Amino acid sequence: MRAEIIAVGTELLLGQIVNTNAQYIAQGCAGIGLNVYYQTVVGDNRERIREAFRLAAARADVIIVTGGLGPTQDDLTKDALSELLGLPMSIHGPSMEKITSVFQSRGLEMVKSNERQAHVLEGCTPLDNDNGLAVGIGLTKDGTHYVLLPGPPKEMKPMFDLRAIPWIRSVMGEEAAPLHSKMLKFAGIGESSLEHRLIDLIDGQQDPTIAPYAKEGEVSIRLTTRATSPEEAERKLAETEREIRGRVGEYIYADRDVPIEHEIVSLLIRSGKTAATAESCTGGMVSEMITAIPGSSAALRGGIVCYTNEAKHELLGIPSELLEGEGAPGAVSAETAALLAERVLERNSSDYGLSVTGVAGPAESEGKPVGLVYIGVAERGRSPEAIKLQLSGNRGSIRLKAAKQALYLLWQRLK
Amino acid sequence: MRAEIIAVGTELLLGQIVNTNAQYIAQGCAGIGLNVYYQTVVGDNRERIREAFRLAAARADVIIVTGGLGPTQDDLTKDALSELLGLPMSIHGPSMEKITSVFQSRGLEMVKSNERQAHVLEGCTPLDNDNGLAVGIGLTKDGTHYVLLPGPPKEMKPMFDLRAIPWIRSVMGEEAAPLHSKMLKFAGIGESSLEHRLIDLIDGQQDPTIAPYAKEGEVSIRLTTRATSPEEAERKLAETEREIRGRVGEYIYADRDVPIEHEIVSLLIRSGKTAATAESCTGGMVSEMITAIPGSSAALRGGIVCYTNEAKHELLGIPSELLEGEGAPGAVSAETAALLAERVLERNSSDYGLSVTGVAGPAESEGKPVGLVYIGVAERGRSPEAIKLQLSGNRGSIRLKAAKQALYLLWQRLK
Repeated sequence: MRAEIIAVGTELLLGQIVNTNAQYIAQGCAGIGLNVYYQTVVGDNRERIREAFRLAAARADVIIVTGGLGPTQDDLTKDALSELLGLPMSIHGPSMEKITSVFQSRGLEMVKSNERQAHVLEGCTPLDNDNGLAVGIGLTKDGTHYVLLPGPPKEMKPMFDLRAIPWIRSVMGEEAAPLHSKMLKFAGIGESSLEHRLIDLIDGQQDPTIAPYAKEGEVSIRLTTRATSPEEAERKLAETEREIRGRVGEYIYADRDVPIEHEIVSLLIRSGKTAATAESCTGGMVSEMITAIPGSSAALRGGIVCYTNEAKHELLGIPSELLEGEGAPGAVSAETAALLAERVLERNSSDYGLSVTGVAGPAESEGKPVGLVYIGVAERGRSPEAIKLQLSGNRGSIRLKAAKQALYLLWQRLK
Repeated sequence: MRAEIIAVGTELLLGQIVNTNAQYIAQGCAGIGLNVYYQTVVGDNRERIREAFRLAAARADVIIVTGGLGPTQDDLTKDALSELLGLPMSIHGPSMEKITSVFQSRGLEMVKSNERQAHVLEGCTPLDNDNGLAVGIGLTKDGTHYVLLPGPPKEMKPMFDLRAIPWIRSVMGEEAAPLHSKMLKFAGIGESSLEHRLIDLIDGQQDPTIAPYAKEGEVSIRLTTRATSPEEAERKLAETEREIRGRVGEYIYADRDVPIEHEIVSLLIRSGKTAATAESCTGGMVSEMITAIPGSSAALRGGIVCYTNEAKHELLGIPSELLEGEGAPGAVSAETAALLAERVLERNSSDYGLSVTGVAGPAESEGKPVGLVYIGVAERGRSPEAIKLQLSGNRGSIRLKAAKQALYLLWQRLK
C-alpha cells in the first residue's frame, strides 16, 4: 500500500514552524511496512485542502492528515473532507461530553465554535484524543483510507501511536509487514567513495534496501528488509551486511546509530584505559564530543586547547624552535602533532594522547594551505605517530572533519 | 506570484530526517513577499520527481527544489527536470574545474559520477555552491521559474540566501516586496521571560512585525518592515527597537545575526586583551565556540579541559582538599569555579579566565542535582567571581546552556 502524509497549516507555509509531525508519522509508517510516497503541506484554505485530498486519493491508498481539527474558522480539514466525499458531519457524543465537562470544570462558558472539535464524518471510526479536545477520524471511502489527526505534536503523537496505527494495521491486513532495519556507521571514508565501492549492490538493491547517507562528518548505511519473523529478517540483513563488510569492513565502527565517540568511550572503559586531547585548530571540539557521552569521565582525563603557539609552548612544553623560525617545521606539522599527542598523554597521566593541528581557514597560516591538518596519536610505550590530511570545505566543515578523523584514528588504535 | 517548495529525498519519506529546509526556504519566501501555497516531499524516484514537478508547474509560478543534486545514482533531480522540460544537460565548466581541483588537492582519483554535480540545464543560470560541489540552477521555462538547490543545509542555506533569492527577486520584478529587517540578539535571558516582558508589543504588532525565536541556547528577535525607502525602513525599525531596548536592553549583545562569541572575540581584540578557559562539564565547548570565530587566536590563548578531578588537580593545581573529602566544597562549587578561572588565567598568561563546572547529567554527582552549574570569571588584578545556575533539560541542553551563559558572563565583563 502507498501512503501520503498531508500537513495542514499556514504557519508551516510561512516557515514559522518545522513540520516535525511528518517525520514522526513517516517513521511510524516505515515501522509497519507502509510506503510513504509523498508528503504535502497545504495552508488553511478549504479549496486547496480539498484539492490536496483529491490529488492524494488519486495516488495513495492511505492518507494521513495532521492539523486543522481545532475550534477556529481556520480549522477546515473535516469540512474539506466532508465536501470532497459528500459525507455529512455530525457530533460525536462522547467527545462533546468531554468538551462540555472541560469547560465546566474550568468555570468557563463554552463558545459555540468548540463544538467543531467534536465533529465526525458519517461512517467513520472516531479516534479518541487523550491530550486535547479535537477528536480524530479513521475513514474508508471508495477504497481509500483517511486518517485525520490533530496538529499539536503532544496530541498527535499519542493518537497516532495508540489509535491510528492499530486502525491502519487493520485496514492493511496482511500487508502490514513489520520492517526490520539495521544501521551501519562508517568513519574514515567519504560518502562518495563508500558508494563507489558498493555501487553494484546499491544499484541492484531490492530486499534488503541499502540507503547510504551522510551528515555532520559521518556516513551511514541503513539496511531495511521486510520479513514475517525476526529470524528471517536477521538472516536477510546478515547476508547483505556480510557482503558490505567484505568490501569496506575496516571503516565500520558500529552496527547501530551511535557516534564514533560513543565507541571510543566504551573501548576505553572496557580496557580500563584513558585518553587525553591536545587541540589546536579544533579548539576543543574533540574533547567536547567525547565528553558529550555520559560516563566519559572514566575515559577522558582531560584536554589542552593549545590554540596559539604560546599555549603549545607554555601548556605542553613544545619547544619554540619546533614552532617558529627559519626552517622550523611549524605548528602545523607532523613533528608538532606527534609531540603534542605525546606531551598531552604525559601531562594527563593517560594511556593515549590525541592531537589535532591544522589550518582551518579562512586564511592560510605559516604559508600552509587551508585544510592542511595533522593528527597525532600517542600510546604509552610506543612512539607517537602523525597523519597528514588535506580537507576541503569552509572553516566549520574543516574543523568538523578534522575532529571526526582524529576520533577515527584513535578508534582504529583502540579496537 | 505563487511558490511551491519541493524537497527530494527518500530519507525524508522514511522519517530519518526532518524537513528543516522547507522551513528555511519558506521563511525566505515570506521575506520577499513570495506566497508559498504548497510544500511537497518526494522520494529519490525519477518518475515521481518528474510528476511532482509537472504538478507544481500547474499550480505555482516559482518552484524551489532541494536535494538530489549529489553524485550518486539516487540523485535524480536534474535528470527529472531535464526530461520534463526537454532541455539537454551539459557540464558547467567552472563547477567542473572546482570538482577536479578538489579531488586533486586531496590526492584522490575523481570518480566519474562526481561529474554529475557539475551538470546544468540548457539556458539556466548556474548558482555557485560556496560550501560544496553540486552547482545549483535557476531556470525559466514556459513562464515557470525553477530553482534547484542542494539538500545539505550547510550548502543549501548560503546558496538560497546569496544566489537564489536575488535570482527569484529578479524574476519577480516589482512584485518582490522590499522588506527590511533587523535582528536583535539576546543572551542571559530565556525565550519565555523575554516574551513575557514584550508580550503587549508582540500581541499588538503590525508593522514592524516582531518575531522572537530561540535556537541552540540563543534568543533572537527579528523586526521586519515593508518600506519604500531604506530611510523609511530605518525610522520604523528604530522606533520599535528603542521600545524593546527600553525594556530588555541589558540582554542585547548585538543588532545583527552573530553569536555572542563573535562579540567576545571583537571586544578582546579591540582592547588588546586575551582570555583562557577552564572547562569541566562543558568539556571544551566554550573554547570550541570561541575558536570557531576566524581570528580568535588573538583573543583566546588556550584552554584546559579539566573533566576529571585528577585533571583539575594536575593541570590547574586545584588542591585535592577543595575537591574531595568530608566537608569539601567539591568540584561543583563556587570555590572551585573561581579558582579554576584564576588558575587558567595564570597558566595561560591571559587577562581573563573563564571556567565552567557543573552536573550535566544524566546522573547527579557529589550528591548535587543535575543542572547545577557554576561559572567562574577571573580578571587580572581583581578577585575572581563565581555565579551559580540551575539549568534544565537533558545533558546536551545543559551543556549548551552552561557554555552560552559562561560566554554571556564574560561578555558582560568585557563590554
